[in-house]
Amino acid sequence: MPVLIMSGGIDSTTLLWYLMDRYDDIHVLTFIYGQRHVREVEHAKVIVEKAREKAKIYHKIADISCIHDLIAKGALTGDENIPEGFYTDDIQKVTIVPNRNMILLAVAVGYAVKVGEKEVYYAAHKSDYAIYPDCRKEFVKALDTAVYLATIFDPVEIKAPFVDMTKADVVKLGLKLGVPYELTWSCYRGEDRPCLKCGTCLERTEAFLMNGVNDPALSDEEWKKAVEIYERIKSGNK
Amino acid sequence: MPVLIMSGGIDSTTLLWYLMDRYDDIHVLTFIYGQRHVREVEHAKVIVEKAREKAKIYHKIADISCIHDLIAKGALTGDENIPEGFYTDDIQKVTIVPNRNMILLAVAVGYAVKVGEKEVYYAAHKSDYAIYPDCRKEFVKALDTAVYLATIFDPVEIKAPFVDMTKADVVKLGLKLGVPYELTWSCYRGEDRPCLKCGTCLERTEAFLMNGVNDPALSDEEWKKAVEIYERIKSGNK
Repeated sequence: MPVLIMSGGIDSTTLLWYLMDRYDDIHVLTFIYGQRHVREVEHAKVIVEKAREKAKIYHKIADISCIHDLIAKGALTGDENIPEGFYTDDIQKVTIVPNRNMILLAVAVGYAVKVGEKEVYYAAHKSDYAIYPDCRKEFVKALDTAVYLATIFDPVEIKAPFVDMTKADVVKLGLKLGVPYELTWSCYRGEDRPCLKCGTCLERTEAFLMNGVNDPALSDEEWKKAVEIYERIKSGNK
Repeated sequence: MPVLIMSGGIDSTTLLWYLMDRYDDIHVLTFIYGQRHVREVEHAKVIVEKAREKAKIYHKIADISCIHDLIAKGALTGDENIPEGFYTDDIQKVTIVPNRNMILLAVAVGYAVKVGEKEVYYAAHKSDYAIYPDCRKEFVKALDTAVYLATIFDPVEIKAPFVDMTKADVVKLGLKLGVPYELTWSCYRGEDRPCLKCGTCLERTEAFLMNGVNDPALSDEEWKKAVEIYERIKSGNK
């Protein structure tokens, strides 16, 4: 039974549907850290309820907020503003939770060992813009090796099936699989509605645009605004 | 300024003294997880106070108990009994906190990035008995690579200077450096006094024996008992 790290965003939700095509039983691990992502967790719960129409899901909400004080830096868990516009390497330095994916993966591996499972999945993927270092293929390979060695008595592996895919590729696959994107949440701002202008919102808008469909999580009016903002920023005119 | 993971045990305390020979300022990170190690933390605080005679120490006590429920399995954080006798590969499966060192190191790397430091040290070392997989040199190399890739914008490295040394070698070095071993705590049972018969106590006894000195943390009577137990178990007669 795979262990999947799922945040309730586009990529990890698509990965859940991908795994449900292959497995009847899945452990889903949703992490809470910092204050900004309470909304994501609520979305994760609704998504799991939907997924339970197709597979047996063991859903664990893992509150790792205790780590927050220790590592909080920048926008994702700290108090700084979420930057607007597409992410470049520089902006990533502000938004990154230091070493977040390795921490989540290390904890997920501990969980996998505890429940006797052998594979931990996460939804790292490529981007045409800046790619978080801990989503890159070389990182996945290196961490998979370290995890394998650390768990050598009963080895666990790290799997990132989307690591060579762009977000548009992921959404294309998800549309085929019938992923309920209307239930997902991506925006980093955590307000009532997506802001449509942070790097995450812009990449989400682009992924749906490139697949020729509206973002089903947005009203028609919001989608119109999202496309306007996207085109304006893309053409360099903020 | 190095970041050192220090538990208050023999190895990490020796590593602190080793680092104080080379650096004037050191970040010391002491992790709390589960209930069993409150005593170790108290020892860590006393050791840091002593170390402050030689260097400027920034001591952070990091409570990561929130991870406990998620990963607790076996003796170190769970409720099972601590096995007696030297550790073999089988017994390690009971005592290991799943993927503990990777979790601590991943969090320590996040902390290092936050405070702008470049090196995370931990006191992994060889053993003539069973070696935890996440203390082995191949694991250190693999995780160092993964960490380097994850933090590539401002790289952090993992250092384990004792990885080729046995506990006896570590104590030999520590005795030269004047490490205050009377302030350290190793026993996994967490009772008022060390039990003298768990794998950790036995390896500690052996390390001092092989250096021809009493364990300074024990009274003369306790040391006599420790040596008796050690010799009895070593000769195969429990």
